[in-house]
Amino acid sequence: MATSDIQLDPKVKKLSIIGFSGDFDKLTAVFTLATGAAAVGYEVNLFFTFWGLDAIKIKQGRSPIGKGFLPKVFGLFMGGLKVAPVSRLNFAGISPKIFRHLMRKNNVATLEELVEAAKVLGINFYACEMAMHVLGLSKEDFIPEVKDVLGVATFLKLADGGQTLFI
Amino acid sequence: MATSDIQLDPKVKKLSIIGFSGDFDKLTAVFTLATGAAAVGYEVNLFFTFWGLDAIKIKQGRSPIGKGFLPKVFGLFMGGLKVAPVSRLNFAGISPKIFRHLMRKNNVATLEELVEAAKVLGINFYACEMAMHVLGLSKEDFIPEVKDVLGVATFLKLADGGQTLFI
Amino acid sequence: MATSDIQLDPKVKKLSIIGFSGDFDKLTAVFTLATGAAAVGYEVNLFFTFWGLDAIKIKQGRSPIGKGFLPKVFGLFMGGLKVAPVSRLNFAGISPKIFRHLMRKNNVATLEELVEAAKVLGINFYACEMAMHVLGLSKEDFIPEVKDVLGVATFLKLADGGQTLFI
Repeated sequence: MATSDIQLDPKVKKLSIIGFSGDFDKLTAVFTLATGAAAVGYEVNLFFTFWGLDAIKIKQGRSPIGKGFLPKVFGLFMGGLKVAPVSRLNFAGISPKIFRHLMRKNNVATLEELVEAAKVLGINFYACEMAMHVLGLSKEDFIPEVKDVLGVATFLKLADGGQTLFI
Repeated sequence: MATSDIQLDPKVKKLSIIGFSGDFDKLTAVFTLATGAAAVGYEVNLFFTFWGLDAIKIKQGRSPIGKGFLPKVFGLFMGGLKVAPVSRLNFAGISPKIFRHLMRKNNVATLEELVEAAKVLGINFYACEMAMHVLGLSKEDFIPEVKDVLGVATFLKLADGGQTLFI
Repeated sequence: MATSDIQLDPKVKKLSIIGFSGDFDKLTAVFTLATGAAAVGYEVNLFFTFWGLDAIKIKQGRSPIGKGFLPKVFGLFMGGLKVAPVSRLNFAGISPKIFRHLMRKNNVATLEELVEAAKVLGINFYACEMAMHVLGLSKEDFIPEVKDVLGVATFLKLADGGQTLFI
């Protein structure tokens, strides 16, 4: 795995985020922090795991994922960015729509725009090997910007010397 | 913005917390960590965003916030410290009352007492610019202890060299 | 308290986790990160607080905890690892079972196996003094691997110089 040979430059500031949540508001926090950091020169590493893998799936919209029966059940509830729920006050999906509306109206980037910005800014996307095993996902299920599939040890090596957040 | 000119002293230990949650138990964790750190000499920076902004609003109690129609809807659910729900087992608002009761009975500081202690200890309160735009809030909506309104880049600069948590 | 006299070795990498959540998926994240880090030589400190204390209780299964009436009510909902709910899509307890099934089927360690691995790997378990006061728990309620009961200041000292996560 190429990532394990990575050279770390101690002078470059780093922000690494373990993206665990699939909630709309928390994913917005992940990408706001990530793009804000990248814009001022930080190296940014996003390590998606569990529900957070939703953010980097190619197939958006509610649909079965993985190969077995049970992963398919989860797939129906991991519908990607467009249907991600808000962690609080979700009201059957209305609340993310309100947020989106407020973001557009107040000229704040929407979640999809933040994800596009993250790609343009060269932010590193990684997927968690263990969670992929559990959910029956493979690298081909993810957007091409996903650089590598990592275990915890490799992620910690990448994150070393910087700030690390669990969201 | 005065904060961007801040001088960082590498010898002072730092704890910075991104206060995202508006849940009673998580806010209690934020202020317990913050006051515990400040009491042993840490510089503590609290950066409130999204639901966490609830903790620093002047107007406590459920009431409309912001200027548009939609922010008002959110305001009805962001009622401040006195009505903040617990992230789990909320039982229609009973659980925070149980916590409060237990805290008093066992001589543990309540959330309101922790917030007051944070002010006395000189903990730095900041509000997230982006979330304020989304929710239609302005600096005048916050308690005077809020030192500044910051973007991600300035917050990261303040947090640099210390521990940073996302709660 | 012996822990406060601890000697810190700046050359050993450290990962410290504040285990706040009692959710099955988040506890799985805590122990996956902890064991992954310990396996590559990190010193790992787990500081359990609030709902997270559930992970280190001796008495597993839903049962009253503590001495007063109210802690008992909480005890009925803090049933330990075997009945910990998933933070999302819990479906009356079915979802953790699905996860467990998927973990076994895909040869990923289950939560109980990860906890056992953490003990074998010499990971440090600590309990939060303040949360124990609130919930009416004492050191005797915890598994013998719990090394000490700590306040925030001592935990921060242990975590100093490493990565710290709040989960």
